[in-house]
Amino acid sequence: MSLGVGVIGAGTVGGGVVKTLLGNRELIAQRAGADVALVHVAELDQACLREFDLGGVSVTTDAAALISDAKVDVVCELIGGLEPAKTFILKALGAKKSVVTANKMLLAHHGAELAKAAIEHGVELRYEAAVAGGIPVIKALREGLVANEIEVVYGILNGTCNYILSRMTYEGLEYEEALGQAVELGFAESPPDLDVEGHDTAHKCQILASLAYSTEVALDEVYVEGITGVTHADVAYAREMGYLIKLLAVIRGVDGEVEARVHPTLVPQDHLLASVRHEFNAVYVTGDVVDATLYYGRGAGRMPTASAVVADVVDIARRGDGPAPPPFVYGPRRPVRDIGRVAGRYYLRLTTGDQPGVLGHVGAALGRHGVSIASCFQQEGPLEDFVAVVMMTHETTESSLRSALDEIDGLDFIGEKTHVIRVL
Amino acid sequence: MSLGVGVIGAGTVGGGVVKTLLGNRELIAQRAGADVALVHVAELDQACLREFDLGGVSVTTDAAALISDAKVDVVCELIGGLEPAKTFILKALGAKKSVVTANKMLLAHHGAELAKAAIEHGVELRYEAAVAGGIPVIKALREGLVANEIEVVYGILNGTCNYILSRMTYEGLEYEEALGQAVELGFAESPPDLDVEGHDTAHKCQILASLAYSTEVALDEVYVEGITGVTHADVAYAREMGYLIKLLAVIRGVDGEVEARVHPTLVPQDHLLASVRHEFNAVYVTGDVVDATLYYGRGAGRMPTASAVVADVVDIARRGDGPAPPPFVYGPRRPVRDIGRVAGRYYLRLTTGDQPGVLGHVGAALGRHGVSIASCFQQEGPLEDFVAVVMMTHETTESSLRSALDEIDGLDFIGEKTHVIRVL
Repeated sequence: MSLGVGVIGAGTVGGGVVKTLLGNRELIAQRAGADVALVHVAELDQACLREFDLGGVSVTTDAAALISDAKVDVVCELIGGLEPAKTFILKALGAKKSVVTANKMLLAHHGAELAKAAIEHGVELRYEAAVAGGIPVIKALREGLVANEIEVVYGILNGTCNYILSRMTYEGLEYEEALGQAVELGFAESPPDLDVEGHDTAHKCQILASLAYSTEVALDEVYVEGITGVTHADVAYAREMGYLIKLLAVIRGVDGEVEARVHPTLVPQDHLLASVRHEFNAVYVTGDVVDATLYYGRGAGRMPTASAVVADVVDIARRGDGPAPPPFVYGPRRPVRDIGRVAGRYYLRLTTGDQPGVLGHVGAALGRHGVSIASCFQQEGPLEDFVAVVMMTHETTESSLRSALDEIDGLDFIGEKTHVIRVL
Repeated sequence: MSLGVGVIGAGTVGGGVVKTLLGNRELIAQRAGADVALVHVAELDQACLREFDLGGVSVTTDAAALISDAKVDVVCELIGGLEPAKTFILKALGAKKSVVTANKMLLAHHGAELAKAAIEHGVELRYEAAVAGGIPVIKALREGLVANEIEVVYGILNGTCNYILSRMTYEGLEYEEALGQAVELGFAESPPDLDVEGHDTAHKCQILASLAYSTEVALDEVYVEGITGVTHADVAYAREMGYLIKLLAVIRGVDGEVEARVHPTLVPQDHLLASVRHEFNAVYVTGDVVDATLYYGRGAGRMPTASAVVADVVDIARRGDGPAPPPFVYGPRRPVRDIGRVAGRYYLRLTTGDQPGVLGHVGAALGRHGVSIASCFQQEGPLEDFVAVVMMTHETTESSLRSALDEIDGLDFIGEKTHVIRVL
């Protein structure tokens, strides 16, 4: 048996896929029980292909020609972005060819539409590489934990953000310094907005939420807050209280609704997620049958992502004439809970004038909105005449906290706007 | 579509499977695209079944009747042990029914024979639950990392041992105390030999080695050393040097051979495996394409193990009429490397008379066998007139080290036999 693979886009990830299919072909064939053969590559920049020995492989600049090549059974879309990726995928599905993609942005925007097309044409759309790179976490959720009602998913899903926060934590850097180093070392794109503003994590959050709760989640229902507002002071205060700051995707089923949100989060230092450093990713999942599980590895980069793409291709080869599993299963709709109704604990850093009665006023304002303080400490701040007051609240809703902060930030002894970070 | 499931053995794990199939039936059907229905349970002790509402499910004490029931498509063997489990499985495979098992002991002894029978009859033999309980690590190795030449697998695969070592590490208990508590809390069987002598871990090591390197590994080729010789003193000295002691299965491909061994191991405190505490399990895998990955969760217990069994059943349901993947793929044989030829670093704890020249004699003996010392410290020992000398060697082979220790342990100023623990 043999499966012909076409790769559209031979840049970073696509090049890794080409390299893996060529380099580990024998090993893969032995395990798959089928020859998984690269037969066609479409790439606009032919310079990308120079490093490979593509004897016997068709090479084109025209993706449509690859899709219509009868030797191509599976199309790997690895150009990223919304268009023309979406058009290519729909065309391939329409030609009854299964598709493997690493394109989280496209899935987060149009996953339901693409899934429908795959089901309609009786082929697969697989996307292991779209979330957490080389870590087989889509497989874990879809298959390994299939018997479980998922309770919660916490994901460290963006290597750039985790790298920046790790440098701030372990080397005491300020955000701008750490970002600069990330760009220099190639861990961050320039401009890095999609990463540091949290949108890349939100794309992955949307995919995981749809999968974990079998419901359509609109991307704009995912609450997103990036790491640009995290300061070294916050990192340092958090550590003093026994926490590290991580950018997390949080997905949770609550009373028939789903929470789907992305924001910096205080993670207890002895939680396994706190050990996930630098550019690594991890996904922590608890289910009603299995309890806690965690999956860790490289969430990006040429080869780790290629590992996931090729695994999807091999799954298609192994399936043979068996039924194509749907990319997403949609059951009864579970609405996404508005962030205002989400309950949790909060870290607050207030900048206040150093005068008597301040804590009393702040405490009273919090109390009026039903927010109670679990712990509190005060330290000299970086601003003259102001001190930092750091508080940890008991559980409250986001809307209660925001009302309280609206009042507090209007008090005349408050310096800059209060910093708020959610707590795991 | 519908898949009939028969469960042989409704004890700890089997009861969990019955509970999950009944309790999460709707959720599973939605995701699987098929009704995965419990249709038959075979159990000698009918008292086990009282907690379940088995209306519509056949109940028997005769496993053969279950296997021959035409409504049973998949047989779950959950009685454990070698016989009659092996007979039941062969009978089910012979009746062209796929089998799901959690039986690591049976697979470690007869996995190749059972796999051959499954392939011959065109059905599946699945065993996710046999290694690391609820963690989908068999799936990760077989499918998620299929594109990778596996470099190394380190597994914390026995919750009892990890619990005992964690208590020794974090609460300063001696081995016997920690073991007593594990038995009391139900984390250890009584007698606990299969766990603490390392044999349970060796069973799982055999399975992972066969899978990772597509080669037949005989169980008696797996080197096994349990945790009964680990003392609180070793745990404390290791921590001083920045290490924790874990019982690891180590599997590694080296020059066409495979290392497959189980022994206490010094793990650096900042390694992710060092964060795996108490009864939890984890498997760390590196591959040539994906780099490092880790899978963490509960390795035993009723529900976590049931989660894995049901996942296997659902995979069979989803496959439909597609080809049955082989339980193990055997490629060219890769011999298991004899422990004497395995290279590594070692922690040594010598008990020596407190007299001049001791270190010189020991160092000279090590040197004669080509073993060099990386670091060393001396502390007053628990025995009168003796001191503990703790050393860390540079990389050497096990046989060189053993020759050196034969010489050293014969020196007249050496008290008890030198303690040796391998280093990750």
